[in-house]
Amino acid sequence: MGPTAVLLIWCPDQKGLVAEVSSFLYRYGGNIVHAEQHIDVPQGIFFHRIEWELQGFGLSQEDLETCFGRIAERLRMSWRLSYSEKKYRVAIFVSKYDHCLVDLLYRHKIGELPVEVTAVLSNHPDLEPLVRGHGIPFFVFPITPLTKENEEARELDLLRELNTDVLVLARYMQVLTSRFVQAFPNRIINIHHSFLPAFIGKQPYTQAYERGVKLIGATSHYVTEELDQGPIIEQDVCRVTHRDSVEDMIAKGRDLERQVLGRAVRLHALNRVLPYGRKTVVFT
Amino acid sequence: MGPTAVLLIWCPDQKGLVAEVSSFLYRYGGNIVHAEQHIDVPQGIFFHRIEWELQGFGLSQEDLETCFGRIAERLRMSWRLSYSEKKYRVAIFVSKYDHCLVDLLYRHKIGELPVEVTAVLSNHPDLEPLVRGHGIPFFVFPITPLTKENEEARELDLLRELNTDVLVLARYMQVLTSRFVQAFPNRIINIHHSFLPAFIGKQPYTQAYERGVKLIGATSHYVTEELDQGPIIEQDVCRVTHRDSVEDMIAKGRDLERQVLGRAVRLHALNRVLPYGRKTVVFT
Amino acid sequence: MGPTAVLLIWCPDQKGLVAEVSSFLYRYGGNIVHAEQHIDVPQGIFFHRIEWELQGFGLSQEDLETCFGRIAERLRMSWRLSYSEKKYRVAIFVSKYDHCLVDLLYRHKIGELPVEVTAVLSNHPDLEPLVRGHGIPFFVFPITPLTKENEEARELDLLRELNTDVLVLARYMQVLTSRFVQAFPNRIINIHHSFLPAFIGKQPYTQAYERGVKLIGATSHYVTEELDQGPIIEQDVCRVTHRDSVEDMIAKGRDLERQVLGRAVRLHALNRVLPYGRKTVVFT
Amino acid sequence: MGPTAVLLIWCPDQKGLVAEVSSFLYRYGGNIVHAEQHIDVPQGIFFHRIEWELQGFGLSQEDLETCFGRIAERLRMSWRLSYSEKKYRVAIFVSKYDHCLVDLLYRHKIGELPVEVTAVLSNHPDLEPLVRGHGIPFFVFPITPLTKENEEARELDLLRELNTDVLVLARYMQVLTSRFVQAFPNRIINIHHSFLPAFIGKQPYTQAYERGVKLIGATSHYVTEELDQGPIIEQDVCRVTHRDSVEDMIAKGRDLERQVLGRAVRLHALNRVLPYGRKTVVFT
Repeated sequence: MGPTAVLLIWCPDQKGLVAEVSSFLYRYGGNIVHAEQHIDVPQGIFFHRIEWELQGFGLSQEDLETCFGRIAERLRMSWRLSYSEKKYRVAIFVSKYDHCLVDLLYRHKIGELPVEVTAVLSNHPDLEPLVRGHGIPFFVFPITPLTKENEEARELDLLRELNTDVLVLARYMQVLTSRFVQAFPNRIINIHHSFLPAFIGKQPYTQAYERGVKLIGATSHYVTEELDQGPIIEQDVCRVTHRDSVEDMIAKGRDLERQVLGRAVRLHALNRVLPYGRKTVVFT
Repeated sequence: MGPTAVLLIWCPDQKGLVAEVSSFLYRYGGNIVHAEQHIDVPQGIFFHRIEWELQGFGLSQEDLETCFGRIAERLRMSWRLSYSEKKYRVAIFVSKYDHCLVDLLYRHKIGELPVEVTAVLSNHPDLEPLVRGHGIPFFVFPITPLTKENEEARELDLLRELNTDVLVLARYMQVLTSRFVQAFPNRIINIHHSFLPAFIGKQPYTQAYERGVKLIGATSHYVTEELDQGPIIEQDVCRVTHRDSVEDMIAKGRDLERQVLGRAVRLHALNRVLPYGRKTVVFT
Repeated sequence: MGPTAVLLIWCPDQKGLVAEVSSFLYRYGGNIVHAEQHIDVPQGIFFHRIEWELQGFGLSQEDLETCFGRIAERLRMSWRLSYSEKKYRVAIFVSKYDHCLVDLLYRHKIGELPVEVTAVLSNHPDLEPLVRGHGIPFFVFPITPLTKENEEARELDLLRELNTDVLVLARYMQVLTSRFVQAFPNRIINIHHSFLPAFIGKQPYTQAYERGVKLIGATSHYVTEELDQGPIIEQDVCRVTHRDSVEDMIAKGRDLERQVLGRAVRLHALNRVLPYGRKTVVFT
Repeated sequence: MGPTAVLLIWCPDQKGLVAEVSSFLYRYGGNIVHAEQHIDVPQGIFFHRIEWELQGFGLSQEDLETCFGRIAERLRMSWRLSYSEKKYRVAIFVSKYDHCLVDLLYRHKIGELPVEVTAVLSNHPDLEPLVRGHGIPFFVFPITPLTKENEEARELDLLRELNTDVLVLARYMQVLTSRFVQAFPNRIINIHHSFLPAFIGKQPYTQAYERGVKLIGATSHYVTEELDQGPIIEQDVCRVTHRDSVEDMIAKGRDLERQVLGRAVRLHALNRVLPYGRKTVVFT
């Protein structure tokens, strides 16, 4: 398949939305390769993802934005346009655990994650050799309660300089400040090591062990200002028994975490996720 | 949600198909509540399911068929139209096992299966009291190798008389003849007690036990003339261990079978399944 | 397999416990058919389940209790003895939802649940015909905030009269009082319609819908005085998407609930569950 | 936990086996940390895994073998003794795909796989830099139909020289000859990319795509002389839909394969797998 464009649309539901969008694309020669809609009936919201081939399509990006913008205005649509050839620029945040990072870098290397990894940022120097071994810049910001505000400001500068679109927190052990979260609304992807909303906060595996659950989970979500409360992108679980120690749960959890985070980043990279309120529409 | 209509469409892929269909429905005031498309890229086939509310829609069934028929002819579309208020008339076939039957009747009773159950047919009289207890007609056709052809002919007469749309084989222990299968193409739903294509044929749990698998499964598929080879609608599995005897597998399998069959019948009833060749598109 | 006896043992861990128990049984001709141990290392507790055939075993129940009691005293073991031929007497509590009840009664009928169902108790009369149709006594206790204490006292009288061993709350919509819970310590099995500890309390499917989770679950646990906090016996989950309405979740949840509860009751009936603190050991 | 020893025992079932073994260990001060038995009732075979701490245990390895050997002879037990401190020496075989190899090396690095990786062997030079980067010797044996016999002989020499206990075929794309298989009975672990026995042989994902299954799987098994027929250690599956191309299945399969193989190697390394006939007992 050649290069494509994706429109993500959300607006109050009304008749004729699909017809308008698909007729518009047909008029300019767009061959649709994926189209999916969803209606949140209680809230009356229409969601739409439409992807078409650029080969043979008669509008430049600029013209598309102008022409479609007029339709969108008339129908009160919110929308987001993206091109498969313009990959998101991603910065990964880590602390000391490397399993999610190693997994993301491997998936990236073999082409599973269509993004550009511009840098890895950490509050510890431990993973520098690993990251540099992949030819990716590594930056340490030694955050302490006292330095946090200052270090985050420096991080934001760096992220701007790198034209960062998306942040991925790959078991990053710091809570981001509001200012940081607001700078990347619905563009910070975290992995939490429990099936949220169970076991919010610290040491979820220890909490799970003490509660005696028979399943442990992992959750990837967008970061919002409220801890572990952002829109969920993907979750998964696996069985545990009374035989599993906290260490066993941590080991099983590693497999969950890296898979769930890998899937979430891929879904975001393919523009398949539309967050709204505390929820997401995930087009498959 | 009020009554709706569903169009299932399949045809060679070309530009503008979604626009044509959605514009047509919009022209007559159809409010789309579900639209999903799929393209089988290697074979170049376009699949589409579109569902809209009938309230406010300006075409009678007859006019819809005429008008849409013209579009379909022009674009070489195959299509199937159905109405949520016109439920499929279903006949269930059983032998002696009752777990799938009990489950289907319960799901039907509480409204999970939007079909009409017109009759239960069996080659054994055992389940008659159970079926009659639900107020459903029960018919015995005592099939033996000698009587098979004759009994099947009588069954076909009965099914015709009952205006049967769909047959559900709920652990029916007879292989249907070609003539029978041809009378209901892609309208006979079977449950096979293995994750097909593993363990085709008889006693799949015994086969699974002897092979020492760590998962057992169940598969619901349309019946074709080749045994256990029809298009798969739904499958699921569960874990087993060395501790599970054949009887344990049969018990675990009961839960699998009834769930998988229940889901498959529901998907078919909602016109969410489009079989093609040996495969299905299942719109979700 | 013929009739068997089961010993469940728990005590401070020390050397030689398995040797003591297995040698004791061997001395009297017991053929062990299942033996499993577990050690909670952090707490230093030893758990053991041992099951042996009674055919050829040389001790009556009384003598076994005396002889083993001496060993247990010496080694400070807590223990529970049960016989496969002496089935637990179970009372089922329901309100208006019938899916778990129907499922339990079906599993019981086909021999999956080795218990005696002595009665069904409800705070509503709705399910009486269903229960009576199975030849099981049905009792209504019309609980209101004002009558609760009195009605529960009458229920306890009835349960005593029926020699009830175990209560199963099959979507019973009343919170039991402390007095009631204390009368059946770790012998009341509940099904909660979420993956606890997420969504404690009322309307967990609505909570799940609003939180936008990608998995819903069900949890069977022993009832303790703290709501939804008792030791978990079994849990399971299934996938949901943004397309699932609250009603869809309720429908998917029905399948989860009845399976999880069915498994939990079976595990308890086979003396495979050992609760301790807020957790359980589940011997498989 | 300190160093432990494990006895795996299998023999015709008879009374007193557990008592004999546990009393023997108790006599010499062994503190049992895991004990599990299983009886294959149809075949009358007893299986036992018992693990105890070496600290405070009064027998050297030599004495243990002598003393226990006498008991085993008397009771006609087959047995295998292993020590947690004496890790298996593992050689990994690969071709060009690296996902299973990368995963095994990562799991090994972080301590999930208690084995020694002595070498990686391949019929292609491609993965040499990756392997050398981990400080592990890499050997190329350029197998062709003509050279196969000779190259395998050289491989066997190398494996002997390295005192190899176990071979892991991490997507090795060559069928081993009988002579090779016989040299490592039940000590060659393969990963097959389907839920065996479905899709034996070549290109299982293409087979799965063409059959239209709704689940794909992976199976780790011991290699025997019959292709894809050896005793299964571990299996898992994941969902696919009509939307998944062969390439999508291959991508989803990578996650399955590396997890299933990782678990199987770990189970073998911990002496938790007892193969017999075409099956395995997996102690958990």
